[in-house]
Amino acid sequence: MNAQPAQPAGDLQPDQTRSVDVPVALLGYGTVGSAVNRLLHESAADIERATGHRLRVVKALVRDVGKERPFPADAGVLTAEFGEILDDASIAVVAEVMGGVAPAGDYVLECLRRGKHVVSANKQLVARRGAELFAAASDAGVQLRFEASVCAAIPVIKVLRESLIVTNVHRVLGIVNGTTNFVLTEMEAGKSYEDALREAQEKGYAEADPTDDVSGADAAAKMAILATVAFNSRYELGDVDVVGIDEIDPLAIAAARQLDMVIRLIGAARLVDGKVDVRVGPALVDRHHPLAAVEGAFNAVMLQGDAIREITLEGPGAGGIETASAVVADMVSVIGTMGTGFLQNDAAWRELPRLEPGEHRSPFYFHLKVDDRPGVLARVADELASRDVSVARLLQHANGDGAALHVVTHEAREGALKEALDAIAALDEVRKPPRPYPVVSERGVAELGWA
Amino acid sequence: MNAQPAQPAGDLQPDQTRSVDVPVALLGYGTVGSAVNRLLHESAADIERATGHRLRVVKALVRDVGKERPFPADAGVLTAEFGEILDDASIAVVAEVMGGVAPAGDYVLECLRRGKHVVSANKQLVARRGAELFAAASDAGVQLRFEASVCAAIPVIKVLRESLIVTNVHRVLGIVNGTTNFVLTEMEAGKSYEDALREAQEKGYAEADPTDDVSGADAAAKMAILATVAFNSRYELGDVDVVGIDEIDPLAIAAARQLDMVIRLIGAARLVDGKVDVRVGPALVDRHHPLAAVEGAFNAVMLQGDAIREITLEGPGAGGIETASAVVADMVSVIGTMGTGFLQNDAAWRELPRLEPGEHRSPFYFHLKVDDRPGVLARVADELASRDVSVARLLQHANGDGAALHVVTHEAREGALKEALDAIAALDEVRKPPRPYPVVSERGVAELGWA
Repeated sequence: MNAQPAQPAGDLQPDQTRSVDVPVALLGYGTVGSAVNRLLHESAADIERATGHRLRVVKALVRDVGKERPFPADAGVLTAEFGEILDDASIAVVAEVMGGVAPAGDYVLECLRRGKHVVSANKQLVARRGAELFAAASDAGVQLRFEASVCAAIPVIKVLRESLIVTNVHRVLGIVNGTTNFVLTEMEAGKSYEDALREAQEKGYAEADPTDDVSGADAAAKMAILATVAFNSRYELGDVDVVGIDEIDPLAIAAARQLDMVIRLIGAARLVDGKVDVRVGPALVDRHHPLAAVEGAFNAVMLQGDAIREITLEGPGAGGIETASAVVADMVSVIGTMGTGFLQNDAAWRELPRLEPGEHRSPFYFHLKVDDRPGVLARVADELASRDVSVARLLQHANGDGAALHVVTHEAREGALKEALDAIAALDEVRKPPRPYPVVSERGVAELGWA
Repeated sequence: MNAQPAQPAGDLQPDQTRSVDVPVALLGYGTVGSAVNRLLHESAADIERATGHRLRVVKALVRDVGKERPFPADAGVLTAEFGEILDDASIAVVAEVMGGVAPAGDYVLECLRRGKHVVSANKQLVARRGAELFAAASDAGVQLRFEASVCAAIPVIKVLRESLIVTNVHRVLGIVNGTTNFVLTEMEAGKSYEDALREAQEKGYAEADPTDDVSGADAAAKMAILATVAFNSRYELGDVDVVGIDEIDPLAIAAARQLDMVIRLIGAARLVDGKVDVRVGPALVDRHHPLAAVEGAFNAVMLQGDAIREITLEGPGAGGIETASAVVADMVSVIGTMGTGFLQNDAAWRELPRLEPGEHRSPFYFHLKVDDRPGVLARVADELASRDVSVARLLQHANGDGAALHVVTHEAREGALKEALDAIAALDEVRKPPRPYPVVSERGVAELGWA
């Protein structure tokens, strides 16, 4: 037995590797958990063909063992005792599909420490305790996979970690919340914010309390995870700069159309000169940009890197079966890489500084409601020019007894723009302080070299 | 040593598994091959962090060892003798980046039979000899990966094989040729076919002889590969129904705009009632469909399956560094799964019948140039109705001394439509036999449930 290669803790032991049957456990057996069990049953032949193994759910942790389930588990599978899973040495892979930060986080941590590979669908958990969990997985020599925690079945985590491993991804742009994207595309079509949100609720896209969606908090959690994975550096959820869609000015939506743009809630994670910046907020997107084409409740993530230019993944970003599909794919990937040491490194292995507030650079859009008097435009232009903010496009039209000015700047330092806007807001002729929106346009046409 | 688990032939032996350094070889050292070597050097730390291994190019097969190279190989690496790679038992992974079907195909086959994992960037080879190569890999217990053979760095093969393993993908729609997409988007903007093609050549998207692109042959090879992987069934390149873009009627492009659609060269692989249909041809795409947003030389592939609804991947589908990035990612994936048996099954393990010609169902568009006489529309409508083809939209406008009729049908059997069009072509009033284009629209709006 001395010739046996060292097995990382928690990996299948040789006799298990050779056994076709791999016992797995679920933490949670609700919509997603039962769909995972169903997919494992229905696709057992496909999975065995690809991996040589059958994944069989032997335990599923639930609060109420007696409750009726959409896809009933086999007799004896449901349990209310976490210890039955933790202490069962035959269980090599655990899927956490219970949601919530506690107690799910402690359960995941304990499973990892016991050498069990973990797959999690839990966005809040990974966004809040990811760094700690990655380190625990790495210490134990097991994998923590979490595809389903971001945009359900859209395989952005696997693509980032496996396909784009040598491309130095430096920017991630995403529409990662379907509810807000639905509301914005409906507003574009003429609906009011209130009507669009009500329709989203009726269609089941938005919760009865839609605060997490419309405030940008849900998108912020996903962007924190994406930034962490893309840049291999822990990024705290609380550090994400978040603006929601609840205060969008309908005038901006109308102006966007005139500028051949659309408004989207954009999550942006950037690595600029070794510093990280992550933000979520409404932005104007050029109609020829791939993200402008994302309509309704769909999600999309664009990954930009040195060797690939950019790759965009689009699809439904939510749904029970979609989420379950991603969980099963992660379980299959664990089985397919187990014992090789692959992706057992700490996903957040380096510390990167944050980009200072205000140092973020982008083109911006803002609009002003002004008195229609001579000299207003000159004063506005002066305040911008004196801070090195140059104007790329300008639209002016009558607006009641005054005028509306719509301004798109060239790329500018956000801090400089905000100073200029503060000065502009103080002008007598300006009726309402302007609010800047970043503009997403730098792609395609120019980079593809076709005018 | 008897307790040692059986090692599949060709996998790293235990002492190699533990060694950090993994010797790899390249077949070819041109633009892609030298970029692979450069990426392996530059990203060595990232790769070692993810896999625990360093991939070192120890041999690269070239015709002329003395020729100057963009990223020079280390001394002694270049060789003109294939045997130096084949017979070197220390080389576990070989990347074929030489192109061409012969002798590349025989080299790949011999490497697989010797138990070496192979990564190939060779579209023609995989499309023409894929089934034979998959079987050889499976027999030898090694992997054949070929991400770079379809759409360069867009990770559609990995996503199909690993992320969507339990989703029963039943349809693949793709814009998989950048040259033709560039030409079509330029024609949309008003250019003639000849001018757009000349511009594509000037920008380096199209070859001096663009036949492979404009005839649809390049797209057909990629769709044959995608169909094979999506449906796990060998699909012969020669069985793909191909129509190019060289005979597109500018009138159709103008009509598409009026119908709020665009024209794209669409590859479509479908699994219908257990039968496979693969075709490439110009189609009208609804402006709200994700594929309508793919502009210029970009590629995109939409995967539709039971558990995911649809996922679309978009990006640059060509380029030396993009291709090299996909080759390296495949090598990393091989290292990360080696010895687990993962993806060592035959990728084309089942035989599926072809859908009979004419049985394909789709909505279609066609236009007619007719004499502007009473009764023409009635006769056209009769010929359609008598074959169960119903009209969804109709546009009519004066066209010189006659009239142009633009017709969009509801979903119809292609065979029935063609019969109707033959009958219509025989009418006295019809000046030119009509040609049908499939219409791609069935997505988004309806499936997302938002009118």
